[in-house]
Amino acid sequence: MELEAYLKKTADEVNSLLQSCYGDPKTALSQAANHLLFAGGKRLRPALFKLAADAVRPGSSKMIMPAGLSLEVTHNFTLIHDDIMDKDEYRRGQKTVHTLWGEPAAILAGDVLYARAFSLICQADAPESPKVRAIALLAKTCEDICEGQQQDMSFEEREDVSRDEYLEMVTKKTGVLYGSAAAIGVLLSQGTDSQVEALYNYGCKIGAAFQIQDDLIDLMASSEKSGKDQASDIREGKQTLIAITAREKGIDLKPWRRPLSKDEIASLISMLTEKGVISSVQNEAEQMITSAVEGLSVLQDTVEKHLLVELAWFFIRRDY
Amino acid sequence: MELEAYLKKTADEVNSLLQSCYGDPKTALSQAANHLLFAGGKRLRPALFKLAADAVRPGSSKMIMPAGLSLEVTHNFTLIHDDIMDKDEYRRGQKTVHTLWGEPAAILAGDVLYARAFSLICQADAPESPKVRAIALLAKTCEDICEGQQQDMSFEEREDVSRDEYLEMVTKKTGVLYGSAAAIGVLLSQGTDSQVEALYNYGCKIGAAFQIQDDLIDLMASSEKSGKDQASDIREGKQTLIAITAREKGIDLKPWRRPLSKDEIASLISMLTEKGVISSVQNEAEQMITSAVEGLSVLQDTVEKHLLVELAWFFIRRDY
Repeated sequence: MELEAYLKKTADEVNSLLQSCYGDPKTALSQAANHLLFAGGKRLRPALFKLAADAVRPGSSKMIMPAGLSLEVTHNFTLIHDDIMDKDEYRRGQKTVHTLWGEPAAILAGDVLYARAFSLICQADAPESPKVRAIALLAKTCEDICEGQQQDMSFEEREDVSRDEYLEMVTKKTGVLYGSAAAIGVLLSQGTDSQVEALYNYGCKIGAAFQIQDDLIDLMASSEKSGKDQASDIREGKQTLIAITAREKGIDLKPWRRPLSKDEIASLISMLTEKGVISSVQNEAEQMITSAVEGLSVLQDTVEKHLLVELAWFFIRRDY
Repeated sequence: MELEAYLKKTADEVNSLLQSCYGDPKTALSQAANHLLFAGGKRLRPALFKLAADAVRPGSSKMIMPAGLSLEVTHNFTLIHDDIMDKDEYRRGQKTVHTLWGEPAAILAGDVLYARAFSLICQADAPESPKVRAIALLAKTCEDICEGQQQDMSFEEREDVSRDEYLEMVTKKTGVLYGSAAAIGVLLSQGTDSQVEALYNYGCKIGAAFQIQDDLIDLMASSEKSGKDQASDIREGKQTLIAITAREKGIDLKPWRRPLSKDEIASLISMLTEKGVISSVQNEAEQMITSAVEGLSVLQDTVEKHLLVELAWFFIRRDY
């Protein structure tokens, strides 16, 4: 099966499971907690979870799917809280939870999803011992995500963020939840410790590369294509890998922190391309994917392993 | 050992364990997460956890103390988020986390403690199966607490809150975490299912009664004694059991929603006492404690059982 079809099928499955778990909210708070969760999303974390589980034990993901939902629910909890912190009004084409219900209810809605994430892992049909390890990993991951978000916010007041600091931030903010998705799939399917570790590292790397690709898309993709404001990171002076690489090459991006016309964005892209900034950033992301894919050598040759390879490259080949 | 000495000893133990777990914060976010946790507190939930554990299996609490900390950490996570929602500036005589670090960091600080709570349960030295049950109970409890806080906030816009709604709210907002503290102690010490259930109900009842006593203290205790603003609930028109009982008895408290002198508060208390409001509310709390204590019949006669009885009465006999 091709990756695209696999992702579509998983998204449908996840949506239907979420519907059966939470489709009948009894309270206003449950409605607020459901809002973003039911507003779509690519459901990439459950897909990664399933692939990792079935790669180590064919067919095993079916029994443990509640844990796959747990990772999607965790992701949505972090988005609700992030949107409050970042004062974002829209997400997935819908108004954000705090915009609709107010900040206090949005804090609680995120907290409700946080609880549900742990409830769901407990519901997986798996031996108790790996379940406890999976729960401990999810808890550690949530703490890392908080650290990543805090670092990201602290970067807004700095001009001197280093490459290593940036990579640590994206790994924590985005990578570790992909790492956990893969590792928890392996754990609950009773893979070996080296498989758990390798798949965790694979997930962290493709997640971090995903974020770098997001930064590239922000600069390169037209608003028509991405649905987002082109070059907003540059205008806002955000410390992305593009900005950091430019600084390393002696390019001052501060003059570009202002409203930019399409032509100006085009000439900015040309300049960054000529100076080798774009290719350097693309290279970094590609190296992460290459390294992630190499780590899959702990897996036997299965359809799922091939899909994991495809998924890794998809993370940096998508253009919106 | 008397209850007071037991609570003092447990608080010291909890403070020292927290120090060894989190005493050396490496990041600004960890500092924010530690702030309230290290600002004291009575540590009643770990004390209840220990008593319940040792009541079913003497000496067992020592092995599972991380889970006792988990309940204190959970409590502190909810306080940090509640303080943001309620815009409170002080707690435990110190500035609140959001006042010192800002709301975004305070949301994250609460989220970090939330993660730590689940990490800590995983660290308890207990069989895996009850551990998973304990984690599932903690997750359910966190969801209940969120519902309770949401109900409490929604009551602010209502004048018609019923006795049952109030009791459901305080049970969720305050009771269930005491219920979990006791039940998780029993679970991890491998008590019977009927002991788990009885101790959960015991904790829910004494926790709800604790909240009712808080409402009584708000009205009856002088500011000198309680350190809080006397009769603030009445002035703010809060739907407490006192306000609900008064309404049931045809007493209109709306004229008292204004700054009140000491003499006015004294005559308000006299009036509510004469009309039987105070005794009715005290009665309700006493009945809850009586019922909670009756539930302890599932326990053998031990020092810990006696302390659990004392603890229950202490919850409504404290006067500040």
